[in-house]
Amino acid sequence: MRPLVRQPALPEEMPGSRRNMLRAACALAGAACLPAWVTASAQGAAEPLDEHVAFRRVVAANRILANESVVDAFGHVSVRDPRDPSRYVMSHARSPALVEYADLMEFQQDGTPLDPRGRRAYGERMIHGAVYEARPDVNAVVHHHAYSVIPFAVSDIPLVPLTHTAAVIGSEIPVWDIAAHFGDTDTLVRTMEIGRDLAAVLADNTCLLMRGHGAVVVGATVQQAVLSAIYLEVNARILAQTLALTDTLKALSAVEVELARATQFSPLGAERAWEYYCRRAGVEPI
Amino acid sequence: MRPLVRQPALPEEMPGSRRNMLRAACALAGAACLPAWVTASAQGAAEPLDEHVAFRRVVAANRILANESVVDAFGHVSVRDPRDPSRYVMSHARSPALVEYADLMEFQQDGTPLDPRGRRAYGERMIHGAVYEARPDVNAVVHHHAYSVIPFAVSDIPLVPLTHTAAVIGSEIPVWDIAAHFGDTDTLVRTMEIGRDLAAVLADNTCLLMRGHGAVVVGATVQQAVLSAIYLEVNARILAQTLALTDTLKALSAVEVELARATQFSPLGAERAWEYYCRRAGVEPI
Amino acid sequence: MRPLVRQPALPEEMPGSRRNMLRAACALAGAACLPAWVTASAQGAAEPLDEHVAFRRVVAANRILANESVVDAFGHVSVRDPRDPSRYVMSHARSPALVEYADLMEFQQDGTPLDPRGRRAYGERMIHGAVYEARPDVNAVVHHHAYSVIPFAVSDIPLVPLTHTAAVIGSEIPVWDIAAHFGDTDTLVRTMEIGRDLAAVLADNTCLLMRGHGAVVVGATVQQAVLSAIYLEVNARILAQTLALTDTLKALSAVEVELARATQFSPLGAERAWEYYCRRAGVEPI
Amino acid sequence: MRPLVRQPALPEEMPGSRRNMLRAACALAGAACLPAWVTASAQGAAEPLDEHVAFRRVVAANRILANESVVDAFGHVSVRDPRDPSRYVMSHARSPALVEYADLMEFQQDGTPLDPRGRRAYGERMIHGAVYEARPDVNAVVHHHAYSVIPFAVSDIPLVPLTHTAAVIGSEIPVWDIAAHFGDTDTLVRTMEIGRDLAAVLADNTCLLMRGHGAVVVGATVQQAVLSAIYLEVNARILAQTLALTDTLKALSAVEVELARATQFSPLGAERAWEYYCRRAGVEPI
Repeated sequence: MRPLVRQPALPEEMPGSRRNMLRAACALAGAACLPAWVTASAQGAAEPLDEHVAFRRVVAANRILANESVVDAFGHVSVRDPRDPSRYVMSHARSPALVEYADLMEFQQDGTPLDPRGRRAYGERMIHGAVYEARPDVNAVVHHHAYSVIPFAVSDIPLVPLTHTAAVIGSEIPVWDIAAHFGDTDTLVRTMEIGRDLAAVLADNTCLLMRGHGAVVVGATVQQAVLSAIYLEVNARILAQTLALTDTLKALSAVEVELARATQFSPLGAERAWEYYCRRAGVEPI
Repeated sequence: MRPLVRQPALPEEMPGSRRNMLRAACALAGAACLPAWVTASAQGAAEPLDEHVAFRRVVAANRILANESVVDAFGHVSVRDPRDPSRYVMSHARSPALVEYADLMEFQQDGTPLDPRGRRAYGERMIHGAVYEARPDVNAVVHHHAYSVIPFAVSDIPLVPLTHTAAVIGSEIPVWDIAAHFGDTDTLVRTMEIGRDLAAVLADNTCLLMRGHGAVVVGATVQQAVLSAIYLEVNARILAQTLALTDTLKALSAVEVELARATQFSPLGAERAWEYYCRRAGVEPI
Repeated sequence: MRPLVRQPALPEEMPGSRRNMLRAACALAGAACLPAWVTASAQGAAEPLDEHVAFRRVVAANRILANESVVDAFGHVSVRDPRDPSRYVMSHARSPALVEYADLMEFQQDGTPLDPRGRRAYGERMIHGAVYEARPDVNAVVHHHAYSVIPFAVSDIPLVPLTHTAAVIGSEIPVWDIAAHFGDTDTLVRTMEIGRDLAAVLADNTCLLMRGHGAVVVGATVQQAVLSAIYLEVNARILAQTLALTDTLKALSAVEVELARATQFSPLGAERAWEYYCRRAGVEPI
Repeated sequence: MRPLVRQPALPEEMPGSRRNMLRAACALAGAACLPAWVTASAQGAAEPLDEHVAFRRVVAANRILANESVVDAFGHVSVRDPRDPSRYVMSHARSPALVEYADLMEFQQDGTPLDPRGRRAYGERMIHGAVYEARPDVNAVVHHHAYSVIPFAVSDIPLVPLTHTAAVIGSEIPVWDIAAHFGDTDTLVRTMEIGRDLAAVLADNTCLLMRGHGAVVVGATVQQAVLSAIYLEVNARILAQTLALTDTLKALSAVEVELARATQFSPLGAERAWEYYCRRAGVEPI
């Protein structure tokens, strides 16, 4: 699964101006100090590269999830590299609220950083690699410890979708317990072996709860993973409030979940939500 | 029910300055580029048009409901057109927090847009048209998915008014389940047929809960619909907190609800609240 | 109880600069346009007048209680006039978050405004007059509808102080039900007769809950009334959270309440808290 | 235990610029007006002094804990003086949200201020001195009254860690009741005798709850004490939410707590969190 050919590093955030600055700065030192993609891009199309958009969305996703209290000091977001599906991109080990474009790093699927430059990687990046390995349909992964989901991660109460906007979380949300196969640990997914164990329990679902730890949420796009992560948190709050009042509730049917999910992920739903959550987080929608 | 005569489009937000800019801009192109209402208004009174105020209040209502967490990325507000009661005005499909005056669109009662210009309409606008059709006393409609009301929309616990400021929600709040007549759907009110089914359950009440989805709140004015929507959310929170402690509680009597509602909707109550919620949302009260 | 001699109107907010502006403005018109207190003050001490400080604290109290979510669009604060104990000062009918110094009005104990100038008075100001009448030790009154206290106002669960900072609310918090003596109403205290009924139930306590409505909190000073109002809301939240978990809890003893209350109202406690709540509300501490 | 030699006062917050200003200001008055540490530092290394960093972290800790709602108007943070382990530094009696570097005071272990200059000391500083006396491993102490921990301080429900980020609170959290040995009080720890009673119950744990009052949280560093205080509040909220749903929950095992705690306190965890909480509080990370 490992890529054999090393690809160029990440594009800079503001291609126009920063490239010009880079070029000016490099004029004295020679073209060698320009990253390969700058040269490539300068030779190529004027349009923004796909991966450029994808990577900026990862930055936006970090800010959004922090702003919506899905993540706190901890948690992370990745995107599969559109240029090489065996790689993924995420920030170095930094709180999501603070992530800038320049914080992004690229990893091989097994978690090996391509260009670490002394930066510390998230200890749990193996979650991302293992999910990308197991799920070709997944292009974005969120890992978080949202407070409202923990009650469902430490008990046997199923986290069922109660309302149509939360249908994006899917009908089934399995709970994975690291202790089942790995005994007493710090509960972190530190190896591909542990990550594969988690991915097997995730199966083809969108969300998974980690006992005593948090959750994993996946999506075909960064926007879908972010929406599902936000509404997993919302639905957990609503469900807890409902269960504090009654044990007799009517959740969405499996068919309603599929139909409502399609609606929420249609442009009618997803674009409206993405613009909203970007603006709330002070991020320019892209 | 459909209007036969096409009316002029929406007035611009700032009649004075923007009209002058429009006129200046049109001086080269000819008067034809001025919308009909500008010409009409320039010929008529200097006072703000009724509909101008009503439409600006729709914009304010969107911002207020977002600011009070009644709506999130989704939800919408409409007002019946004071110039033609068979039409209503609401934003194109955009998150309420972001709605500007220029986002407003006009619809015939059956949901047909008068001047779409490529803009996407809310998928659930039929809620509004069906309610306006059934309720001549209603001039404003709010549709939302406030988290605190969902527990009462997926259970058989009645959402009763507990406190005088929440008397504006009325004594009876029916729950409508789309599945009763329409089976498994994405739970959206996409047709006038479904909307009429909802309006029949709403009957002459102010609020209605939608199973697995959200709520509809109506009012004689935009301000009344907004106040009722805010206090429906507040009362749901208070009631849930109370029911978590005891099953023995004393709700307002039906007479108290009617009397307190009249007080809250009097100028003493409604104007004070409208100024407050506008200011909190950063909107100039109008 | 009614004062026979009409006293000067309220002092302006910024005596120094605004007085000078007034004087400059009046130089053309003659000294008669200067309010009596300005003349008096100019002849007297350079120090701020007691009532000036008291009235500015009412403005601060309004902002603080709004900022701490004790009041929303509704609720009010008054102070007994230090110049005439049979009168009290509060804003005209405006949301507490928006109250400015110029919004203050003075009332006789029976609720008659001294200088209405067309301004609308709070419909429930009789709460204040009746409490000042019954309680010579009280110099400030807060009326609010904080959401967290309502569960204790519509049930028979006693709102007991759980923690030392909340000892300022006192050991006993009676619940008053307007319907007991006045039947079905809009639940507002609109007359001195109703106000006296409420004051009789308040007796010598600090806080009182109003069934289906809200609460009244009193203090020897504005600061004490504000602190008690804030911690009534806080204690109600904490107590509800505790009772959701267990019925077996250890509240403060009556002696602990008295001792902790004295500590919280000492300069060590009260001045620190007043500075904090003023700063949080964006108000200069005075 | 008392230090015999009086040490220089606290360093100024901004050594560079403010020292120069001090020097300029003192040029007329003579070097005697310069505090001893300025002279010492000017003669010594250009690097920031250890204690300077430690004391600035106390200021940051105050702001962070206020921003995260761990403290409100009340609560305090101290650090053991790196220059003399028998002394500690904390603000004078001021709300944590407002604490500036210039508010810091130094105390002997028994609570005697070294340089009071008329400033009022926190009434409960004996908590800090008694803990420093009993626990040589502790270099920072937080005392707070976070609302979410009170339910566990007034009942017999154990506050167990539910999730790995909260493992920093430790497995055992004893509850100390001042009334057990001291009868009815205002519940404040006003003497070293009471403080030693508390420290004996704290034993070698990280957190202790005070019945009817609040909590004490200790750490080897200011950052560790702050992280533990934040996650004590978070874990209390999560646990209360879980217990409202079910009595059957799976807490972290004791070994998981130790392992996850080590991870959270490693640079991978602690530095990321410190940067995040500083930035959220508007404090420059140091």
